[in-house]
Amino acid sequence: MKSDLSKLMRARKVDALLVLGDALHNPAMVYFTGVTHVSEAVLIKPIDQDPILYFNPMERDEAAKTGLETRSLNTFDFKKLFDESDQNALLARAKLLRLVIEDAGLKAGRVAVYGLRDAGEALGLVDTLRELMPSLEFIGEYSHTIILEARATKDAQEIEQMRDVGQRTIQVVDQVRGFLASQKEKDGLLVDASNQPITVEQVKKKIFLWLAEQGLDNPHGTIFAPGAEGGVPHSGGSPDAQIRIGEPIVFDIYPVQAGGGYYFDFTRTWCIGHVPEDVQALYDDVRSVYTTIMSELKIDTLCSIYQDRTCELFAAMGHPTVAEDPNTEIGYVHGLAHGLGLDVHEAPRFSREATDKDILRAGSVVTIEPGLYYPEKGMGVRLEDAVVVNADGSIEILVPYPLDILIPLEKA
Amino acid sequence: MKSDLSKLMRARKVDALLVLGDALHNPAMVYFTGVTHVSEAVLIKPIDQDPILYFNPMERDEAAKTGLETRSLNTFDFKKLFDESDQNALLARAKLLRLVIEDAGLKAGRVAVYGLRDAGEALGLVDTLRELMPSLEFIGEYSHTIILEARATKDAQEIEQMRDVGQRTIQVVDQVRGFLASQKEKDGLLVDASNQPITVEQVKKKIFLWLAEQGLDNPHGTIFAPGAEGGVPHSGGSPDAQIRIGEPIVFDIYPVQAGGGYYFDFTRTWCIGHVPEDVQALYDDVRSVYTTIMSELKIDTLCSIYQDRTCELFAAMGHPTVAEDPNTEIGYVHGLAHGLGLDVHEAPRFSREATDKDILRAGSVVTIEPGLYYPEKGMGVRLEDAVVVNADGSIEILVPYPLDILIPLEKA
Repeated sequence: MKSDLSKLMRARKVDALLVLGDALHNPAMVYFTGVTHVSEAVLIKPIDQDPILYFNPMERDEAAKTGLETRSLNTFDFKKLFDESDQNALLARAKLLRLVIEDAGLKAGRVAVYGLRDAGEALGLVDTLRELMPSLEFIGEYSHTIILEARATKDAQEIEQMRDVGQRTIQVVDQVRGFLASQKEKDGLLVDASNQPITVEQVKKKIFLWLAEQGLDNPHGTIFAPGAEGGVPHSGGSPDAQIRIGEPIVFDIYPVQAGGGYYFDFTRTWCIGHVPEDVQALYDDVRSVYTTIMSELKIDTLCSIYQDRTCELFAAMGHPTVAEDPNTEIGYVHGLAHGLGLDVHEAPRFSREATDKDILRAGSVVTIEPGLYYPEKGMGVRLEDAVVVNADGSIEILVPYPLDILIPLEKA
Repeated sequence: MKSDLSKLMRARKVDALLVLGDALHNPAMVYFTGVTHVSEAVLIKPIDQDPILYFNPMERDEAAKTGLETRSLNTFDFKKLFDESDQNALLARAKLLRLVIEDAGLKAGRVAVYGLRDAGEALGLVDTLRELMPSLEFIGEYSHTIILEARATKDAQEIEQMRDVGQRTIQVVDQVRGFLASQKEKDGLLVDASNQPITVEQVKKKIFLWLAEQGLDNPHGTIFAPGAEGGVPHSGGSPDAQIRIGEPIVFDIYPVQAGGGYYFDFTRTWCIGHVPEDVQALYDDVRSVYTTIMSELKIDTLCSIYQDRTCELFAAMGHPTVAEDPNTEIGYVHGLAHGLGLDVHEAPRFSREATDKDILRAGSVVTIEPGLYYPEKGMGVRLEDAVVVNADGSIEILVPYPLDILIPLEKA
């Protein structure tokens, strides 16, 4: 949680956090500012002190809404810096940053850099700052960063926001389910009242619109992938693909609060009209692992044990898994779970990059998403729900929704 | 244009471009891949060679859609790299990047880094790569980067995409205009059929929905700022603000192709019902400068001259400008224009960071947006259109729309 920041900074001997970039769709900045229209801002959080937001005066009203201590970048004369740098924008901007850093009272020590920006621009800025301010050490953290470690547990207010995004998302999921159920079958295809086949594109357009109605952004799109496409975890679904009766569809939806705040992430696999035997068998395996893992999740345990356990369970059912071959493209091919928050994938981590710092704690919000993939058999199945670990150790599904694979046709 | 890349690389002695991050809402990556669901990819473009996209195998179908040469990251054994790095994710990921860079045939020379990522993660990766690959020099460009310089002129296909986004945007603008015109006046406020005041939030919800209907994302939100809020260029408009008859509203809209492709950017200032004299006078000044500048734009001229000219014109009308005081918060307080493309603000640049490289060329797409701001008088006026410079030197407004300030009430 945010209140852990100074403790984490002390443990890593970091004297200040320097966050760059906009306050829209920029998790490290939004963590401090909330979602607000502040662009090219600079936020500095010295250890044991409140953060200071330096803003562009055109956005002074938006900056004030953050409730943070704010200071205008107009205090510093950028034009003079630019002119004396011979129109070298990089040097001028780095000199501006130097003035900001000095203004925040940082004279020596270690400064960790964050914020979504073009990697090259960030690199150029920091390389120049290293020359301009040799008494400071600028470092870039990776993966288990101070900010990500703080974000890995959520406070009550964050969880309420996430539950709200979840409820809006589930409302859209239910609208999609209702839309599919109200169509009819013709020659093995799902068709509308005038016998036109329903396409993936049509469904996605509705999803896009219904998410907007809920006030949600959808920057990463949506997976609505029938048949063999659902057999490749991140295939989005070809727009012109038609939907076959009985073909499994992987529907994975991960919208975010408008402007880039908290994400939700949710997956169901559906067959419309009926469920073929082989699909049902695959689904039963995934659902069984889903149920077992959900019942075994426990506060204050290492995340990686659940990935190992999932591989063990799937392997016992005869499926290839990443435990036996990390590069397998059939069977169980990905990680079980991931933290969810201001990023759709964040700490704690459960697979590839999981370490002994990745622990289920009070306030962890993670998605559990076992899946099996057989693209050559034309099928994939994945089930995903977000859970929160409560302070009393109980594991709660953030927004419950039926796991059923079958969507019966209302007009059948 | 993209065809200029190798020439630009040669001029700057750069042997390869290294682009990191997702292919959604990541301009440097999207420039090569188009909008596609490829996450944590690596793209390498060696000088005089086609780019190579290294992808996560879960996204192999999406990677294939780019039409680029693609190679799976599974070729390299990340798990082994992670284990031999003592669970140091940064070191493992940097070692993976080393293998990718070697695979692309880079042994020595200068590598310029790009792509939207967390600045700290990018910094950590590059600092580690510098240790792992001392024969390569990794650099971060800023502002006038190779990729931004290439992007500063658009080819015919890009311009068609931008015109399409523009037409969709203008359709939404016209819907908003129609909605406002169809309401009525009561006690100086704009009210609906049941006499409820129309709020900014209501209008914004409609904009959000109508943009979604057009298949557009709106990651940066929309400015719909009445009265004094419109007097601060980037105030978004308070949600619960009511709309007063005759109060100027600054409406600035800048959506993007779904998933993060090309942007459009457009502003009108509207008064509903009638236009007070002082607002009309301010509007006339802005419109006059708009018209003058539009008539003076000329191919192969320095962009900065138009900012100077705008200051000169506004100053002659008696307004404070940034020419006389770069920090002024009344009068003409910002830049005249900016390039438009995969970013809402990109090269060429017209103000603060403009250099002698910023030139209007065939294929430039820029927005022209003079404005005047008097927050204490409760008003701001801005007009903005996107223009393209054609090869024959003609200047064409990408999507024309009336400049009128007055929206008459249909029911008045």
